[in-house]
Amino acid sequence: MDPDFSRLDASLADRDLDGYLIDADSENADQYYLSGFDAPDPFVTLYDGEVHLLFGRSLEYGRAKREARAATVERNVDFGYREKVAEHGADEAPFHVLAEFLRSYGVESVAVPPRFPVSVADALRDLGITVEPDRDSVVTDVRATKTEAEIEFIRDAQAANEKAMAAAERLFREAGVDGDGRLTCEGDVLTSERVKEEIEVTLLRNGCALDQTIVAGGADAADPHDRGSGPFRADEPIIVDIFPRNKATKYNGDMTRTFLVGEASETVREWYDLTERAYEAALDAVEPGATGAAVHDAVCDVYEEAGEPTLRSDESAETGFIHSTGHGVGLDVHEQPSVGPNGGELEPGHVITIEPGLYDPDVGGVRLEDLVVVTEDGYENLTDYPMELVV
Amino acid sequence: MDPDFSRLDASLADRDLDGYLIDADSENADQYYLSGFDAPDPFVTLYDGEVHLLFGRSLEYGRAKREARAATVERNVDFGYREKVAEHGADEAPFHVLAEFLRSYGVESVAVPPRFPVSVADALRDLGITVEPDRDSVVTDVRATKTEAEIEFIRDAQAANEKAMAAAERLFREAGVDGDGRLTCEGDVLTSERVKEEIEVTLLRNGCALDQTIVAGGADAADPHDRGSGPFRADEPIIVDIFPRNKATKYNGDMTRTFLVGEASETVREWYDLTERAYEAALDAVEPGATGAAVHDAVCDVYEEAGEPTLRSDESAETGFIHSTGHGVGLDVHEQPSVGPNGGELEPGHVITIEPGLYDPDVGGVRLEDLVVVTEDGYENLTDYPMELVV
Repeated sequence: MDPDFSRLDASLADRDLDGYLIDADSENADQYYLSGFDAPDPFVTLYDGEVHLLFGRSLEYGRAKREARAATVERNVDFGYREKVAEHGADEAPFHVLAEFLRSYGVESVAVPPRFPVSVADALRDLGITVEPDRDSVVTDVRATKTEAEIEFIRDAQAANEKAMAAAERLFREAGVDGDGRLTCEGDVLTSERVKEEIEVTLLRNGCALDQTIVAGGADAADPHDRGSGPFRADEPIIVDIFPRNKATKYNGDMTRTFLVGEASETVREWYDLTERAYEAALDAVEPGATGAAVHDAVCDVYEEAGEPTLRSDESAETGFIHSTGHGVGLDVHEQPSVGPNGGELEPGHVITIEPGLYDPDVGGVRLEDLVVVTEDGYENLTDYPMELVV
Repeated sequence: MDPDFSRLDASLADRDLDGYLIDADSENADQYYLSGFDAPDPFVTLYDGEVHLLFGRSLEYGRAKREARAATVERNVDFGYREKVAEHGADEAPFHVLAEFLRSYGVESVAVPPRFPVSVADALRDLGITVEPDRDSVVTDVRATKTEAEIEFIRDAQAANEKAMAAAERLFREAGVDGDGRLTCEGDVLTSERVKEEIEVTLLRNGCALDQTIVAGGADAADPHDRGSGPFRADEPIIVDIFPRNKATKYNGDMTRTFLVGEASETVREWYDLTERAYEAALDAVEPGATGAAVHDAVCDVYEEAGEPTLRSDESAETGFIHSTGHGVGLDVHEQPSVGPNGGELEPGHVITIEPGLYDPDVGGVRLEDLVVVTEDGYENLTDYPMELVV
């Protein structure tokens, strides 16, 4: 991976700041991206045209020297930590080290992410370093454009996702229906929890993990953020939305399918067809230079022409198409760019979801989602999984 | 769960501050603990003797009203968000809302966690609110003392951990040895990756997840933070350290065992026996009023009397007992209190690990770890798993 930091350079030059400073663990995607290093405890990354790392303790030092994409890797002890503890106490010494570390690179002013820790910012300012929160989150912005290597990582996560989706679909295909209209699996009632377990075990066996999966039927599926629970019923649509993260690369996949065991009502069938059309209209609109807003509009057009409410036609709508068309996917499962009403220009290397859907507690929910990468002349779909409602 | 916030009240009174403010998602354990609410995106919690939540968007509002341990739950729109966007712009409006939210409770000054976002702190200060970083992390300190309900959550996570450890042990018990001295499983070389997968699938099937497991043999095991990789060999100790989190409760377990297939060398056998004695000496020292430092000293005494180096006898030691004796476990797998050289007084309700170990790249590593809760008259071991080196 060899990110293009020219936008970061330009941002620092524009703002007349010497460097960009992050203090976070590598669960923070900006930190992992800028440092190229994976560590469970917070550490410091300075970007001043090159990447410099600072660790409080020596624990990660040797590994960082070997693994991080950094010009230099240093520790508190390299900046007179013990003397600073003696002079300023153990609470204050790390801040004096940090200021000295910055000044060793001639850095007197830094941009920091909006969520940079206030205690560190306060201390640096007290020591005469200018600290300006970067409300534009320029590193997050740089991350939106993926390298070829990153696209491969996302493709791998999506391939695992396809296997997990197939495992879920298999449970529905093989499901029975009991006398109360509930789906069954090997004699037990088939629950959301059972399907999620199958998904998660499949992902684990394919190098991925995830915290949450949405497997929601009936009224649960009508709330796009309900993760689902309990038994499923025949004849109702079931939304399966899986967003795994590859444990080695940390990049995510994302896909949604809607399944139904039994007979679809006329409304559900219409919703599904309409959502497929909205999905196709969105993909037709994806190309470099098109805005995320235009892609979102293409979806709203299809739904509104069919008489379905959208947040564009009624911003207080609680049924219909009540979310954005999509979002970027990378180290974070939700990241830039936006594919919604405020979405800016799409660029080659943007990886985005296209996920139209319709919701109503009286009907349930239908959503279809693929993951695509914007290319020089359009897009490539990173997802290879059929769309079929009734299984 | 009904946490005792009297320490938080006292801290605010001492510092003459009106409230405690957190702006974080619920992966932040202090946020989850104070708010009693689980949400993937950042939200605001104010504690002023009661808990008040503020959400930027309406998405989580209904669920928060039902689920959160909060006196009030409000949204940006409840504080004239649209008018504030018109007046101050979309970037600044949320800060004006937040200041108005605070003032609606008579709060003009707040303590915030050390890692509170600098952009929010800067904006609140500009609007006349006093924002003081809480270097003592008082909410983290309150969390160290567990309620009965929290202890049950940890016990449940540890029970799943025992099943996962048994699954790992089974792979070692059933392992063959090939002509090169490598362990095998069903004809394949038995690797760290294979054992981890078995552990993780077992945890998933028992309601738990984890990001990382340590299954490390040979020289890997001599580095306490190496997670292990590749094939295992006969006659060498293999450290298995599992720290799962229950997905429903978010509380963690933690346990380590060391296994060996084949014949243990005299050194490894001595190390194992010595580590069992150090473990017992530590447990003998655990009681309310004893310090974490005293428990740690009990371990160092055993090792040093046997001639093994410790960080207490040589702070630059790279072999021997080169870490602390333990740490608190709860919503975070590493939290207060410390069971190391600076560990303070233990109190009933503290849940701590006891995990002595010995390391040397030429020998490998041995570590044994149980999880215990400090009680009124000593401790209760939350772990029920035998200690046996050769399997």
